[in-house]
Amino acid sequence: MLTIAYDGKVGGWQTPKIVPYGDISLSPAASSLHYGMQCFEGMKAYRALTGGDGRDGKGEGDVVEEDDLRLFRPDRNMNRLKDSMRRLGMPGYDFDGGEVIECIKELVRLDRDWIPSGRGYSLYLRPTVISTHPYLGLSPPESLLLYVITSPVGPYYATGFDPVRLTTDTPYVRAWPGGSGSSKIGGNYGPTMMPGAEAHGRGYSQILWTFGEEEHVTEVGAMNVFFLLEKGGADGKGRRRRELVTPPLTRGDILPGVTRQSILELAERWDEFDVVERSITMSEIRKASCDGRLLEAFGAGTAAVVTPISHIQYRGEDIIVPAPGELAMRLFDDLVDIQYGVVEGPEGWSVRI
Amino acid sequence: MLTIAYDGKVGGWQTPKIVPYGDISLSPAASSLHYGMQCFEGMKAYRALTGGDGRDGKGEGDVVEEDDLRLFRPDRNMNRLKDSMRRLGMPGYDFDGGEVIECIKELVRLDRDWIPSGRGYSLYLRPTVISTHPYLGLSPPESLLLYVITSPVGPYYATGFDPVRLTTDTPYVRAWPGGSGSSKIGGNYGPTMMPGAEAHGRGYSQILWTFGEEEHVTEVGAMNVFFLLEKGGADGKGRRRRELVTPPLTRGDILPGVTRQSILELAERWDEFDVVERSITMSEIRKASCDGRLLEAFGAGTAAVVTPISHIQYRGEDIIVPAPGELAMRLFDDLVDIQYGVVEGPEGWSVRI
Repeated sequence: MLTIAYDGKVGGWQTPKIVPYGDISLSPAASSLHYGMQCFEGMKAYRALTGGDGRDGKGEGDVVEEDDLRLFRPDRNMNRLKDSMRRLGMPGYDFDGGEVIECIKELVRLDRDWIPSGRGYSLYLRPTVISTHPYLGLSPPESLLLYVITSPVGPYYATGFDPVRLTTDTPYVRAWPGGSGSSKIGGNYGPTMMPGAEAHGRGYSQILWTFGEEEHVTEVGAMNVFFLLEKGGADGKGRRRRELVTPPLTRGDILPGVTRQSILELAERWDEFDVVERSITMSEIRKASCDGRLLEAFGAGTAAVVTPISHIQYRGEDIIVPAPGELAMRLFDDLVDIQYGVVEGPEGWSVRI
Repeated sequence: MLTIAYDGKVGGWQTPKIVPYGDISLSPAASSLHYGMQCFEGMKAYRALTGGDGRDGKGEGDVVEEDDLRLFRPDRNMNRLKDSMRRLGMPGYDFDGGEVIECIKELVRLDRDWIPSGRGYSLYLRPTVISTHPYLGLSPPESLLLYVITSPVGPYYATGFDPVRLTTDTPYVRAWPGGSGSSKIGGNYGPTMMPGAEAHGRGYSQILWTFGEEEHVTEVGAMNVFFLLEKGGADGKGRRRRELVTPPLTRGDILPGVTRQSILELAERWDEFDVVERSITMSEIRKASCDGRLLEAFGAGTAAVVTPISHIQYRGEDIIVPAPGELAMRLFDDLVDIQYGVVEGPEGWSVRI
C-alpha cells in the first residue's frame, strides 16, 4: 500500500512510502473515527488488450499485452479527491495530483502480478484520505494520512449484463443542496446502507434516489444515472429524435462521476442524439414510460462501468424499462475498449503506467 | 479505555475489556474509514458537590464529595447510540444499554483520579462505535468495535458566560428530512467544519443552521437551540406571557439532545411560561427582535450545558439578542446543580457510580 502522511507541524506532506499491506495504527480520538473526516476515490489499473473482438464479455479473442498497464483518467480522480478534502476543511488539498499519480503508478508496477488479465479484470485502487488528528473538538484536522490500497477484481457481470431492479419508494434522501452529495466523503455512504438493505429485502437491488417534492432523480445506489428518451419528431438528418438525460451537477447533490463525464463526452462525439444534463422527475419518467418513450435507463460508475436498469418501483408500481438496451451495451463496450487500450480514446483517457 | 468488540461470526458482542489508552489497530479497508460507519456519544462523569452556593461559576463554597461520582441521564445516551447504530445499518444495536452503563461506571471508577473537582469540572466520556469490517462493498458491517475514551475537562466558561455571535449566512445546510441529522453519526459533523471555519474567519463563533426556503432554524454549531419570546398579553396568573421555543424533532433533521430534553422537562415543571417544540423561522426571529419580543436565545449541549447567544447575523445584518439572559443562567445553574448532585433532580437524572 502507498502511504503519504500530512502533518501541519512539520511542513505538510511527508515523503511517500510503499509499505506492505497491513493494519493502520490510529488514535481512538482521531477525527476520522468520530466526525467522518475521510474521503476516497475508486480507480482501476488495467492490463491492456489488443486485437480481440472480446465484446462477448468473456475476453475470447483478446490478446493480453502483459507489459502495457493502464489507468483511466486518473487526473479526474485526483481533482475530485482534492475537492472532497476541501469540502471537509482538510489542509493539504493543494497537493500535486500528478505526483500522486506517479506514486500510484509505482504501486501498480510493484503490484503488477496481482493484476488479472482479460476484459473485465483489473486491479481496483482505493485512494483514501483520513484525519489522524486526535482531537475531539470540531475543527479542521492538522494531520492526515493519504493511502492507496489495491484489490484484484473480476468482471462485474460474469455472465453478460444483469439488469437491476430499482425502487424509489424509501423515506430516505441521499443528498441535498448545501450538503455534501457532490463530494466523495464517507458520510454520504454510511446512511445509505440501511435503506439499501431494506430495499434489498423487498426484492430491489438498489434505490433510485430522488430529491424534493417534485422527485427529481439524483443517483442510483452509488452510481450516476442516465435515461434515453424519445422526444418525438425527427432531427435535421431525418433521424428519430432522442435525448440522453442525466441529472445536472448544479444543485450540488450529485457526485461528478468519471464514468458519467466520459459517457457525456463520448455521446457528444457520436452526435446521434441530444445529450443533456438537466433535472428529470419521476413523473416525467413515468409519463415517458406510459407513452413508450422511455427507451433505456442505466447507472454509470467505476465498478460496473454501465448497469442497465430493468425496473423502477415508483409509488408501489414497477415501471418496466427495456434492458439491456443497445446504448448501454455500446457505451459499455466503447468505454471498456478505451480502458483496456483496445481502441485509442480521447487524449488523456487511457494513461500508460 | 473500555472496548467491546462485536463479531457476527462468533456470536456478536464479546466480553468487555478495560485496557490502557492507546492506538487502535484497524484494517485500511475498514468501512469506518471509507463509508462513515461510525457513531458516538458525549457524556460526563462528575464529582459530586454539596452545600456550596457556587453559583458564581467559580466553585467557591462548594464542598467536594470525593467518593460520590455521578453520570447524567446515561440511559438517554445509550438509547441514542443504539438509534445511531440502527440508522447506519450496524448489527448489534439491540445491546443492553444498562450493561454498557455498568461497564462505563467501572471505567470511571478506575479513572477516578482523573476526574477534576469543582463546579464545571468533569471527566468527559466519549462512547464510540466504529465498523472494523474490512469490506469495500456497500453493505452493513459484520464486525464492530464499541469503545469509550475519557478526558478531564474544565469549565466551558472559565470566566462566566461568554455569549456567542452566530451567523445564518452560509450556503451550506447541516441536515435534511430523510437524511441522518437526528443521529449522532460522523457524517453529520465533518461537512460542518469548513463552513464553520469560514464563519469563524468572518468573526462569528458558529453557524445557526437553517433549513429550506422558509429558513426554519435547526441547530447552532453542534448544539440544539432555544428562543425565549414574549407573546403579548398575560397568562391566567397575570404574568406577561412568554414562550420557550425549540425546533421539533418531527422532521428528523435535529439531534435529540439530552440537554435539550432536560431543559424542556425542567421548564415544564416550572410552569412559568409556555414550553413549545415547534418550527421557528428566521423571519419570525427577526420580527420578534424588531418588536422587542426576542428576550433570549441560547444553545444547549453536553459540552457547555447552555451557551447564550448575543448576535445572529441574518442576510448581512446582526440581530442583537440580550445576553446572557436570566433564563439561560438559571437553566445552567439548575442543570449543573443536578449534574453535581447539589440538588436532587428528577428520578434517574443524576446516576451514582
